[in-house]
Amino acid sequence: MNYEPIDVLGLGNALVDILAHAEEDFLIAEGMRKGAMTLIEEDFAESLYGRMSSATIISGGSAANTVVGVGSFGLKGAYVGKVKDDPLGQAFIHDIRATGVGFSVEPAADGPATGRSFIIITPDGQRTMNTYLGASQLLSPIDLDEELVRSARIVYLEGYMWDRPAAKETFQKAARLAHGSDARVALTLSDPFCVDRFRVEFLDLIRAGLVDTIFANRDEIRSLYQTADLHAALEALRAEGVLGVVTRSEEGSIVVEGGATFEAPAFPIDRVVDTTGAGDLFAAGFLAGMATGAGHLKSAELGALAAAEIIQHAGARPQVRLALLAAQNGLAL
Amino acid sequence: MNYEPIDVLGLGNALVDILAHAEEDFLIAEGMRKGAMTLIEEDFAESLYGRMSSATIISGGSAANTVVGVGSFGLKGAYVGKVKDDPLGQAFIHDIRATGVGFSVEPAADGPATGRSFIIITPDGQRTMNTYLGASQLLSPIDLDEELVRSARIVYLEGYMWDRPAAKETFQKAARLAHGSDARVALTLSDPFCVDRFRVEFLDLIRAGLVDTIFANRDEIRSLYQTADLHAALEALRAEGVLGVVTRSEEGSIVVEGGATFEAPAFPIDRVVDTTGAGDLFAAGFLAGMATGAGHLKSAELGALAAAEIIQHAGARPQVRLALLAAQNGLAL
Repeated sequence: MNYEPIDVLGLGNALVDILAHAEEDFLIAEGMRKGAMTLIEEDFAESLYGRMSSATIISGGSAANTVVGVGSFGLKGAYVGKVKDDPLGQAFIHDIRATGVGFSVEPAADGPATGRSFIIITPDGQRTMNTYLGASQLLSPIDLDEELVRSARIVYLEGYMWDRPAAKETFQKAARLAHGSDARVALTLSDPFCVDRFRVEFLDLIRAGLVDTIFANRDEIRSLYQTADLHAALEALRAEGVLGVVTRSEEGSIVVEGGATFEAPAFPIDRVVDTTGAGDLFAAGFLAGMATGAGHLKSAELGALAAAEIIQHAGARPQVRLALLAAQNGLAL
Repeated sequence: MNYEPIDVLGLGNALVDILAHAEEDFLIAEGMRKGAMTLIEEDFAESLYGRMSSATIISGGSAANTVVGVGSFGLKGAYVGKVKDDPLGQAFIHDIRATGVGFSVEPAADGPATGRSFIIITPDGQRTMNTYLGASQLLSPIDLDEELVRSARIVYLEGYMWDRPAAKETFQKAARLAHGSDARVALTLSDPFCVDRFRVEFLDLIRAGLVDTIFANRDEIRSLYQTADLHAALEALRAEGVLGVVTRSEEGSIVVEGGATFEAPAFPIDRVVDTTGAGDLFAAGFLAGMATGAGHLKSAELGALAAAEIIQHAGARPQVRLALLAAQNGLAL
């Protein structure tokens, strides 16, 4: 075990993405909520796969995508999540380690298969997710190396973990440990329906001071404060006394902290191919900036850059070295 | 078993593609021949995978890509190739059937794993392949349903099959059966080094009249006739009395048949993302045209259209319905 300082330690549901393209009609016929993440059981996962067109398999998992992005910026990332020791789990481990991210959680020898997110990409590039959590939900506090958490500058937690008791306990243990060291503790709200399921608990985490940085998109922050008014939601977030980072797709991001507000534009792109991972990679860029002492504006620009890279190809793992991309765009870390 | 007429029956090495991005340096360090297909053994496959960056898994196999393309044009395709009954093999079967292509070869219950092609994509979009044949090389004449072959209008054979005795015998059996019915028999030369390994045998197939249509790119046809002069190679091909279809990347394709020559331009594109499957999908478009009685020029235009679609994203399986794309471009079948 290596306890060199870690820039960003991510915790989340370890998933492999199974992506297929479909027309809007498919979402309607399947009764899917476009753009959202819906949890599904194993039986449905199998029947859905049977109805999906030719698919691409690529490692995913929201926080995993984020720490891989942090690693691609040349920083030290580590990840805590649970897969099974099956071919998809082995692929997940290969892919996360291939980017230099530390990963040492023992894969499950039995029980449910490695978790999978079945992602339907419509012609507009929007992704709609149906997730079978599988082994990822078995992540338990025992899997969490306390020294690893204490060695992290930033601990990044995925709201999705709240869906299952064991994963949620691991999340809470990590937040407490990080809070006890000098680490920052960031939470991504993950999905508006996830916020809907756990609104009170997420607000409790913030108000108990266990979490000091919130990542959210427009829908998630409006869901958190149950308002249709983004401005009102941003002011409510500001009033919590946390660092709030809110993405607005092509309208760029807004960062609120105390009386200060920072706005960064989206990075110009040619064409949206697949939005999977846009929020995850925005967080990667922002966290990479934060870990290296950049100001919030530059951090938000780094987030926009990483998000732009990811939405121009299928899958939520960068295809170029983000450190190089940052340097080419005057944003070297 | 369904013996409705099949437009195109493809035979080939059934492979799953494992794609990763890398700089040119990686190819040099690994001693890889850029743009070529090199056969590797299982041990090397595993160690290479360990050195590859985060990877994407997509069904592949040259002739399989082609018949999937034919299916995407709305025609009836069927495929004969061998996978193992393991997760990658199951994914291969899912993906080929998801496009409506008939597939009924029994997967191998034991023996080597499903074959894999490790594909390195360099920043110029070029693909370099290292293929572990695995279960694909076990395809044997027993796997070939004679009635299925007799029900096909066109039988499309992959030169790569010549690399292993059992697969080669299956190829020969299919060619003989098709020759005995009224089917056309097309051969793709697959790769210049593949041609180098089997030049005499490929020429024998042509001269014995077992094969009446040849698909090749510039390098392959020059390799077949051992000349650096493309014009000389094309004239040699013309003299064989076959239909010769030669692709030249962005310079478009040339079709030779007796005294006639047809030239079709490449289809304009924004950016080459990944050339994997360009030749396979060109063949799909050409065969779709041929099967529906289109002239050679329109067939070549359909080939260019399908190739353009495939090189603008990762992987060698179409992401849109090619029938729709054809209709949108004035090339409805």
